[in-house]
Amino acid sequence: MDSSRSGKESGDIAIPLREVKSSKSGKGAPPVVAATTVRLSQQPPVGGWKRGVGIIDLILRICAITATLAAAAVMGTTSQDLPFFTRFFQFQASYDDFPTFTFFLAGNVITCAYLVVSLPFSIVCIIRPHILGARMLLLLFDTLALALTMAAASAAAAIVYLAHNGNPNTNWPALCQQFDEFCPRVSGAVVGSFLATLILVVLVVLSAAALRRN
Amino acid sequence: MDSSRSGKESGDIAIPLREVKSSKSGKGAPPVVAATTVRLSQQPPVGGWKRGVGIIDLILRICAITATLAAAAVMGTTSQDLPFFTRFFQFQASYDDFPTFTFFLAGNVITCAYLVVSLPFSIVCIIRPHILGARMLLLLFDTLALALTMAAASAAAAIVYLAHNGNPNTNWPALCQQFDEFCPRVSGAVVGSFLATLILVVLVVLSAAALRRN
Repeated sequence: MDSSRSGKESGDIAIPLREVKSSKSGKGAPPVVAATTVRLSQQPPVGGWKRGVGIIDLILRICAITATLAAAAVMGTTSQDLPFFTRFFQFQASYDDFPTFTFFLAGNVITCAYLVVSLPFSIVCIIRPHILGARMLLLLFDTLALALTMAAASAAAAIVYLAHNGNPNTNWPALCQQFDEFCPRVSGAVVGSFLATLILVVLVVLSAAALRRN
Repeated sequence: MDSSRSGKESGDIAIPLREVKSSKSGKGAPPVVAATTVRLSQQPPVGGWKRGVGIIDLILRICAITATLAAAAVMGTTSQDLPFFTRFFQFQASYDDFPTFTFFLAGNVITCAYLVVSLPFSIVCIIRPHILGARMLLLLFDTLALALTMAAASAAAAIVYLAHNGNPNTNWPALCQQFDEFCPRVSGAVVGSFLATLILVVLVVLSAAALRRN
C-alpha cells in the first residue's frame, strides 16, 4: 500500500508499474524502491513537453514586447512639418492630432507593460511546468491583451486607410499626398501592432494546449 | 491486477479505492465489482462540473450569435436620405459609402456564421464532457473569431467617432449633425459587436478552464 500511494503522489502513469516490479523482485529492500520513485518524479515525460511550450511562450512574449514597443515608439516619435501650406491643411502632423492614434499609443504601451510584467510568470511556468494557476492567469490576461491590441491596431488601421484614400462620399480628403513621410511611418507602426496581435493569438492557443496536457 | 486495470480505464480516482474494498470483502464475487465500476464511470464527478461549463458555453454562444446578427442586420439595413443637400454632402448615407462599415458587416457575418457552425461542437462538449479535442478546437476558433470581431468593431468605432466629432486638424468634417438618424443606428451596431467580443473573451476563458480540469 505504501509504494502505490507514493506512485499516486508523483502523478506519473509509468511509475506504479515499475514499483510493482521492484517490490516483486526484492521484498526486503524498500530503500531501493524509494530512490527509484524520487528519480522518476524529478523527470516526468509530460513536464518536458510543457517545459518546451514554456520556452516557446517566453520567446514569443519577448517578440511581442519588441513589436508593441516598436509600434508605440514609431507612433510616438513621428511628426512631419510641411514646407508649404494650403487653406485646408495644417503645417504639422503628429499622433496627437488624431484621437485614434493616441488610443493606439496608449493600447500598445499598456500591452507592452503587461507583457514585461508577465515575463516572471512565464519563467515560473518553465521552471515548474505543473503549476497550472500561473498558466491560467497568463491565458486570461493574454486574451485581454489580445483584445486591447487588436482594438488599437484596427482602429488606427481604419484611420490610416482613410488618410491614404480619403472618402469622397463624406468629403474627407486624403492626407498622404501631403504627408508623404508621416503616413508610411504610421502604417509601419500599425503593422507592428498587428504582428503583436498575431503573436498573442499563438500565446493564447499555446497556453490552452499546455493546460490540456494536465 | 484485473480490477486495478479496469479502474484505470474509467479515469476516476475514487474507483480503485472502492474496488480494493470489495475485493477484500468478497474474493469470489467479481461480477459485483464489475457492475460497480460501470455505474461509477457513467457518473464521474468532474464530468458534472464540465457539463455545467458546457451549458453556459452554449447559452453564451447563442447570445453572441444574436449580438453579431443584430449588429450586421442594423448596419446592413441603415440608410438615410437627406431632405436637403449642400455643396459638400451627398443626399444619402449607407454602410457601403464607408469601406470600414463594409468590413464591419463582413466581419460580423463571418463570426455569426462560425458561431452557428460551432453550436453542434458545443453540444458535443455537453454530452461528452471528456472529449477535449472538440473543446480545444472551439478555443482555437473562438480566439480567431474574437480577433476578427474586435477588429471589425473597433475599426467601425474609429469611423463612428470621426463621424460624430470630425477632426479639424485634418479638415474632416463631422457628419452626425446632418445624418441624425444614420449615426445612432450605426453606433448601436458597433455596441452590439463589442458585446459579442466580450462574450467571446468569456468563452475563451471558460474553454481554458474546462481544459484545465482534465
